[in-house]
Amino acid sequence: MNQKITLPSVTATKGAGDTAGKGLSLLHESVSLPAAVVYRSRLDNNLSWMQSFADSQGVKLAPHGKTTMTPRFFQLQREAGAWAQTLASAPQAVAAAEAGIGRIIMANQLVGKRNMALVSGLKAEWGTEFHCLVDSAENIRALGDYFAAAGQTLNLLIEIGVPGGRCGCRSDAEAEALCAIIAEYDSLRLTGIETYEGVIGGPEAPAKIRRHLEQVRDLTLKLHAQGRFGGQRAILTGAGSAWYDLVAEVFGGADQSKVIPVIRPGCYLIHDKGIYLEAQQQVRERLGDSCAVQGDLQSSLEVWAYVQSMPEPGLAILTLGKRDCAFDAGLPQPALHFRPGSARPVKAPAGWEVFHIMDQHSAMRLPEDADVKVGDMIALSTSHPCLTFDKWREIHLIDDDYTIIEQVNTCF
Amino acid sequence: MNQKITLPSVTATKGAGDTAGKGLSLLHESVSLPAAVVYRSRLDNNLSWMQSFADSQGVKLAPHGKTTMTPRFFQLQREAGAWAQTLASAPQAVAAAEAGIGRIIMANQLVGKRNMALVSGLKAEWGTEFHCLVDSAENIRALGDYFAAAGQTLNLLIEIGVPGGRCGCRSDAEAEALCAIIAEYDSLRLTGIETYEGVIGGPEAPAKIRRHLEQVRDLTLKLHAQGRFGGQRAILTGAGSAWYDLVAEVFGGADQSKVIPVIRPGCYLIHDKGIYLEAQQQVRERLGDSCAVQGDLQSSLEVWAYVQSMPEPGLAILTLGKRDCAFDAGLPQPALHFRPGSARPVKAPAGWEVFHIMDQHSAMRLPEDADVKVGDMIALSTSHPCLTFDKWREIHLIDDDYTIIEQVNTCF
Repeated sequence: MNQKITLPSVTATKGAGDTAGKGLSLLHESVSLPAAVVYRSRLDNNLSWMQSFADSQGVKLAPHGKTTMTPRFFQLQREAGAWAQTLASAPQAVAAAEAGIGRIIMANQLVGKRNMALVSGLKAEWGTEFHCLVDSAENIRALGDYFAAAGQTLNLLIEIGVPGGRCGCRSDAEAEALCAIIAEYDSLRLTGIETYEGVIGGPEAPAKIRRHLEQVRDLTLKLHAQGRFGGQRAILTGAGSAWYDLVAEVFGGADQSKVIPVIRPGCYLIHDKGIYLEAQQQVRERLGDSCAVQGDLQSSLEVWAYVQSMPEPGLAILTLGKRDCAFDAGLPQPALHFRPGSARPVKAPAGWEVFHIMDQHSAMRLPEDADVKVGDMIALSTSHPCLTFDKWREIHLIDDDYTIIEQVNTCF
Repeated sequence: MNQKITLPSVTATKGAGDTAGKGLSLLHESVSLPAAVVYRSRLDNNLSWMQSFADSQGVKLAPHGKTTMTPRFFQLQREAGAWAQTLASAPQAVAAAEAGIGRIIMANQLVGKRNMALVSGLKAEWGTEFHCLVDSAENIRALGDYFAAAGQTLNLLIEIGVPGGRCGCRSDAEAEALCAIIAEYDSLRLTGIETYEGVIGGPEAPAKIRRHLEQVRDLTLKLHAQGRFGGQRAILTGAGSAWYDLVAEVFGGADQSKVIPVIRPGCYLIHDKGIYLEAQQQVRERLGDSCAVQGDLQSSLEVWAYVQSMPEPGLAILTLGKRDCAFDAGLPQPALHFRPGSARPVKAPAGWEVFHIMDQHSAMRLPEDADVKVGDMIALSTSHPCLTFDKWREIHLIDDDYTIIEQVNTCF
């Protein structure tokens, strides 16, 4: 049996994407639940907010696409003004290139012949400007040999890490040694310096992160002075979704005749009601009155589910589980309650709480006298959008009246 | 943009399935990593082991398909002798019916008009014998009305739960009341009784589970004596992957002129090196010498990744993260180490340990003098197969020489 079977679409939710769902209303029970929905108005708000922030800070935006892996959203980010798209792997980069993204930062080491072949093909087929990270001589030599054989040139960013952190050189000396190895290969071009400050934690994180960013900036300027970037401006890039303000400040403040400062937040597009809400509140506190951008990010993603059982007073079992949403950074939170046949959803009271999640079920606690019954819908906000998105092949883009505008496909 | 973009296949790993990967070797770097692989020999062992167990105990096997959601595996389970396939949702049931599965137990309540429409379509299109669970009057009445309007008959199993557990009636009286409501509808047919004992925990779990199963069995026989099943044998079904031996013993011991005892383990097919290994060891201890089946289940799933960075002594960063495997029941465990160009993988030493997992990376601790370098492959065993499978659209079935025999598609 080699036939390709997919879950039914629209019709069902998880399945091969199409646009047949356009115009269907969640409130008319036209869509199989559980389903993941994104409010288009909030998505647009977030697209605009972060691009405005980057513009106001004088930095380029290369949104991390791994969060959504939704090529349609990559296109919206580009149309909003993104300078590049960040991805995490060679297959992800191919999906972005296929969607028409012209400049890609793969914020990871490119390892393995098949992955190198994917990147080689991407450059050949779409002419994509592609940059990836290196932090070891072994990897540089493997890349240099591979792309020499392919008759192509590969752009490299040297990754700078921190002790106890993830990938990346731990000292300037290491980075300078790698520059020398890169220079041995005509097939390689050093185009900048990268770091990911998100691995720095603890109560002194802001001060430590600032110091680290300053070191990375200074190293980049030093390497630029040494002519390591072939006389070109060096890409100087950092930032996940929690500290992008500090990166924008430190990198954006560098001499832009020598560097192109680039921030790479990803979760902002979807945002959440959990860890990234908290991170954004801290960003806002740090920015204080200096933030020139009006408004703020909005949580745009919900997973809708049915109440399937009310087996005991004060307990509702929902048709939603670890198969449908993230659970590693807080459990989903009831946002809306809707009874089919009523006019509109109402806000879920604060006392309703998902306290346990299994593979295909969640248990929600609520007051014993709550007016909830089997067949009601609950819309849930989530924490950590990345790990909700990768549960779905199809996401429903809805308007503020809960009607599907468009269905978009993910590429996990 | 409505074009459908998927990650590149074979070629890459995560993408639309095909069979072009057949014959490719993991050892030749022909496959993009990370990749999920299943050893066919171990899969066959597990297929045979559990079917033999069910046969030897005189119970029917309805493997839970939610674990893999891989229609190709459903077909292998049917060919091995499975009596039915268990699924968790209406879209999942449609995928199984499309794969040719003729008898389905949806071990969940069927809620919502679109989900009911999917089941109605499944019955009309494929003539599938379909059973789902009920535990409330509201749901029974909604189903009765829907299927009456559709001119179809829906088979129902009453779910019996436990206090503090998940779905299901909490007393015999509740179940009897539901029988009466079902009897009001010509469009509904009561075909059996279901329970899921896996929600019972604690140190006295075995004794509590046995007592619960005996109550469910006795209730079923009582309802049978009352003629609630229309004179037919009642399906009497329970069992996840941890307590199927007790269910087989208690339900299999009931008078089979009155009941059809059915167990529904799912994870056995893939098994693991974590929570299900432990659960199976306990099954074996309980079975003792009474187990007529030779051998045992084997962990058949691995995720292969590259070492992408060795940034500090004793630390390797792998191209594998929460996006690629389960992390809710223990982190992935290094099983094999392979250096491209060498003859074969070798067993990963016991001291190598994944101690941290991020979205797209894992951190592995190893001795400072370990002979590992960037570009090496690490094959990792996992715990909780369900939450690894749902990260992948394509799984590579390999032989014991690490060559791809077939690529199979998941339907999440």
